[in-house]
Amino acid sequence: MPQAERQMHLNAFLMGVGHHEAAWRHPRTEASRIFDAAHFQELARIAERGKLDAVFFADTLAVGHRLEHNVTTVFEPITLLAAIAAVTERIGLIATASTGYNHPFTLARAFASLDHISDGRAGWNIVTSGGADEAANFGLDQIPEHGERYARAHEFLEAAVRLWDSWEDDAIVLDEASGTFAVPSRVHRVDHTGHRFTIRGPLNSPRPPQGRPVLVQAGSSEDGIAFAARWAEAVFTAQQTLEEGQRFYAALKGRLAAHGRSPDELKVLPGIVPFIADTEAEAKALEQEFTELISPAYALRQLSQMLGVDLTEHSLDAPLPPLPPVHEIRGNQSRFQLVADLAQRESLTVRQLIARLGGGRGHRTFAGTPEQVADELETWFTQGAADGFNVMPPYLPGGLEDFVDTVVPILQERGLFRTDYTGRTLREHYGLQRPAGVFTRSSGAQVAV
Amino acid sequence: MPQAERQMHLNAFLMGVGHHEAAWRHPRTEASRIFDAAHFQELARIAERGKLDAVFFADTLAVGHRLEHNVTTVFEPITLLAAIAAVTERIGLIATASTGYNHPFTLARAFASLDHISDGRAGWNIVTSGGADEAANFGLDQIPEHGERYARAHEFLEAAVRLWDSWEDDAIVLDEASGTFAVPSRVHRVDHTGHRFTIRGPLNSPRPPQGRPVLVQAGSSEDGIAFAARWAEAVFTAQQTLEEGQRFYAALKGRLAAHGRSPDELKVLPGIVPFIADTEAEAKALEQEFTELISPAYALRQLSQMLGVDLTEHSLDAPLPPLPPVHEIRGNQSRFQLVADLAQRESLTVRQLIARLGGGRGHRTFAGTPEQVADELETWFTQGAADGFNVMPPYLPGGLEDFVDTVVPILQERGLFRTDYTGRTLREHYGLQRPAGVFTRSSGAQVAV
Repeated sequence: MPQAERQMHLNAFLMGVGHHEAAWRHPRTEASRIFDAAHFQELARIAERGKLDAVFFADTLAVGHRLEHNVTTVFEPITLLAAIAAVTERIGLIATASTGYNHPFTLARAFASLDHISDGRAGWNIVTSGGADEAANFGLDQIPEHGERYARAHEFLEAAVRLWDSWEDDAIVLDEASGTFAVPSRVHRVDHTGHRFTIRGPLNSPRPPQGRPVLVQAGSSEDGIAFAARWAEAVFTAQQTLEEGQRFYAALKGRLAAHGRSPDELKVLPGIVPFIADTEAEAKALEQEFTELISPAYALRQLSQMLGVDLTEHSLDAPLPPLPPVHEIRGNQSRFQLVADLAQRESLTVRQLIARLGGGRGHRTFAGTPEQVADELETWFTQGAADGFNVMPPYLPGGLEDFVDTVVPILQERGLFRTDYTGRTLREHYGLQRPAGVFTRSSGAQVAV
Repeated sequence: MPQAERQMHLNAFLMGVGHHEAAWRHPRTEASRIFDAAHFQELARIAERGKLDAVFFADTLAVGHRLEHNVTTVFEPITLLAAIAAVTERIGLIATASTGYNHPFTLARAFASLDHISDGRAGWNIVTSGGADEAANFGLDQIPEHGERYARAHEFLEAAVRLWDSWEDDAIVLDEASGTFAVPSRVHRVDHTGHRFTIRGPLNSPRPPQGRPVLVQAGSSEDGIAFAARWAEAVFTAQQTLEEGQRFYAALKGRLAAHGRSPDELKVLPGIVPFIADTEAEAKALEQEFTELISPAYALRQLSQMLGVDLTEHSLDAPLPPLPPVHEIRGNQSRFQLVADLAQRESLTVRQLIARLGGGRGHRTFAGTPEQVADELETWFTQGAADGFNVMPPYLPGGLEDFVDTVVPILQERGLFRTDYTGRTLREHYGLQRPAGVFTRSSGAQVAV
């Protein structure tokens, strides 16, 4: 089969028994598996059978008010991925974790540990925690201001990178005869002193196999894009149309040069929620089955949270009320903009909007045959809107099995996706370099990040 | 075989390629396995073959200045135990984690996740971080005062217990027909407001299978004993002589009634470092081989840290210099006292003291035949000094294999240790009740911890 030069990257973004908010109610799922680690281990093995780049888990630091109708995050992602590492060989393991309510030493160490456990398959999806419920769990009266959340994230990354790099790659010598375990001059204090953290270091972990975990980011606001341009090696993004996807792709790639980075050093991976069936009509009917299971009360609460307005008393058959300006949103600004644009562009009522968001909370939903799904991915990939995709099965495990067994072979046939792993680490799957450390070898002096 | 009513509890305390500080230099170990998660997974399977109660990992939040000669903690214990959970079925999984530099929400959640992943096998060894290097990694100029560290630990536990209990056991109903996922009135805010933390809750995790992880504690200072009497369900302790062990056991058990607890609700588990061989002479010769591999420079630095005096220029063949009073020790006060007593009781030179501490940093080292080791354990167990033991193999995996294959069968033959697991959770292995939650069912009102 043909092998195109440029290959697509595919993650399985896993959530509960599926991304569709009513997935747990559908006969194709078994709701109790949301609480079963073995369920997620099996999903990772299915994704690995499909040679996917990585599995990915989202996270928030609060239950929120939605638990009457749905709970999606039960396990803490880093621990869950450690358990998944034990039953997989190659697939990357990407955990979401917050810079808002962690300490750089603790979190850098947890990711170093996951990278050691998995022999170099760890990735960190960096979020800044924009929820009011999250703030309340950590002693704050309100969500920290958007710019401050990102300022903290920048400082957090500066410290984390120095911590990961604090042991040079050849610091450990294990010379049994002389009794020399490691060479102290190759293990460095990090001496981070910033506005929020003071950290002496070194990290209590040898340098991770990948040097650093793959750095992933998902916010697409202006602050988020600026952060991604500096730090991210993969960006997960929600884009509803090809044109919006192309615009975002070009804009983000265009920001890299200012940081001395080439476009290849950052992979843009939009989310897609595929409903797959033998015919287009069957796929659309399947999507409709899920839509009919949505609890309007739950959906209105979700939408109210996204948009920063209380819609719980709003008519389902009216359009959205006037929305606040985006700069007043303390939470996820880019998701706010996406939903506002979608509703306006397609003149949707609240009920129609809820149906459109039910599959992936703003990520593009697509219902069709395996060929049609593959066509859609190929179009975005070849038309400058994506380096690959975050595949978000609406129900699990069936939605992932269908993607792996019916869509992946078509992409492979077209030469767009690997037929087997060629590397061992997530960096190798993504075609990313292993970064050199920030501490030079010979002098032991520190080099700026 | 006879089955005594009271059965011993045995943990495998695992560290690197063995507890002896020079283990990595000995031909019976392969030093590079210190960095290999599969090594620890194999050790856990050996311990499970022996029907041991749990594997246990220590932790510190700094490398310290010892890395030239030895590094013992590479993996973060909770992530490592999640990877071990995936390849074991029954054995308990105890991770050390600090109340000093974590947040209750984050840590309670990590242990809830480990307990869910392992179907109820998680234990938390609670430490308060008494190291100066640890303080420096978290922005502090010096170690917080001993009493303050324990005051923080008490508040931390108060919050953590409420977080684990915040979801009642039957909060999740998964009623697909009505779309009711969970019953909101069975999920409670914790509203913790203390001197150090303000936490709204609930935890973003359903109640763990064990209700709470098994709470373990290891400090034996007065503050530590007071903490253990209130919170701990198992206490790991270093005791050099039977008499000291008996005194500690009686004193700690005697403190429980004041908290409305029965003596059975807390298991006292002294550490023991067994060198095992076919004859006593061979066992002692094996111990001597390890002693001869000790780096005096490393041992002096370890000892200086324990005792709060700089011994690095002190003569190896002189007795210890005068030591500071115990109340001036900000770090581990009970270990200070143990080492000071040991040196004085046996009139040891520094060189002799180093040899005695090389196996287990203050834990009792014993060299003998399998029968002799079993006799020693039986004596402590039946003479009121122990409910079981933290077995600390001086080298790994061989030292654990020898214990499991030669000592465990003797204990089983004597009816002192289970021949198979009778429970599934760590609580069941230890004979501990699953705690009721602090939130009542019907009213949703809060009950004091």
